Amino acid sequence: MSRRPDPTRRSEQSRQAIVSAAVDLCVEIGYAATTIEAIAARAGVGKQTIYRWWPSKAAVLLEHMTRVRETQIGFPDTGDLRVDLLAQTSAVQGLFASDTGAVWRGLLIAALSDDVAADGVRTLLQAAVVEAKGRLATAQKTGELRADVDLDMVVEIIYGPLYHAWLLTGRPLPEAYMEEVLSSVFDGLRP
Amino acid sequence: MSRRPDPTRRSEQSRQAIVSAAVDLCVEIGYAATTIEAIAARAGVGKQTIYRWWPSKAAVLLEHMTRVRETQIGFPDTGDLRVDLLAQTSAVQGLFASDTGAVWRGLLIAALSDDVAADGVRTLLQAAVVEAKGRLATAQKTGELRADVDLDMVVEIIYGPLYHAWLLTGRPLPEAYMEEVLSSVFDGLRP
Repeated sequence: MSRRPDPTRRSEQSRQAIVSAAVDLCVEIGYAATTIEAIAARAGVGKQTIYRWWPSKAAVLLEHMTRVRETQIGFPDTGDLRVDLLAQTSAVQGLFASDTGAVWRGLLIAALSDDVAADGVRTLLQAAVVEAKGRLATAQKTGELRADVDLDMVVEIIYGPLYHAWLLTGRPLPEAYMEEVLSSVFDGLRP
Repeated sequence: MSRRPDPTRRSEQSRQAIVSAAVDLCVEIGYAATTIEAIAARAGVGKQTIYRWWPSKAAVLLEHMTRVRETQIGFPDTGDLRVDLLAQTSAVQGLFASDTGAVWRGLLIAALSDDVAADGVRTLLQAAVVEAKGRLATAQKTGELRADVDLDMVVEIIYGPLYHAWLLTGRPLPEAYMEEVLSSVFDGLRP
């Protein structure tokens, strides 16, 4: 019996090659310079192959971010809120310092002038906020988090410092950054 | 004695008209669409008049931000840290919701691909961080703030939530937002 090529598998390999090429280019030459032409050349496919699956480079890169979100920064629930927050936010800090950080930064900027990027970024951020609020709501029930605080604000208190440092001031962060942030905001800044 | 026109004063009026025109356009049509041509037309001057004083639209808008920083969001020192932080951060929250917010948002995004904007934004942010850290250092000496916390991180804990909400999720914020943030991070999120 002869083995026939599997078109579904070949498709998936092409899709993966295109997404990887787009991520590599974003890291090497920046989001703005990453064009569909450059992605096609790097992935060894025609432009039409890319346009068959995605409407724009933003859409290609959003697929990468969606996969990362689903596989690398899920929210654990070990029953210990501080342990779970530290694990998840440290993973996010690590991603910001990795190739994925360059992609996410590019998409956040593009979101201000490109509707596809804006919709995709909003969807990803909303999913992340909903997931974090779910874990925080459980912690309010078990008494690990003050019951009288607005959960949208708590999400902003936990992730805001990391985004501020990474996106705005760009200062190099210590590895234990999120441990210090969580300890400061949970125990309080008051002496 | 006849009154002669004062060229310094006329210059200053032209400069102000150009900066105001740039801010108005940024609010009305967005940062990307605000061109030097459009600014010149709105201000009733020639393009060369603008280029005599500024190298780019980013530079014009940075002048607005510098004036705002110097006149509207200084850091008070009443001797009560929480009162001072609330006054200053509430002023920043108000600015984000005003015309100046559209200008600052445009510059923050432009900073990622435009060197003039990047330098200007970095200078403004660094000045703001230095000023905030100065006030926080005083509070550490007077015992109003834990002495063992890194002040760069404290700045990020105080301003990060506001930037996260304003720049990333874009949710409408309650007027008392910064009061809630400050009370949460100073008293702690732990029950």
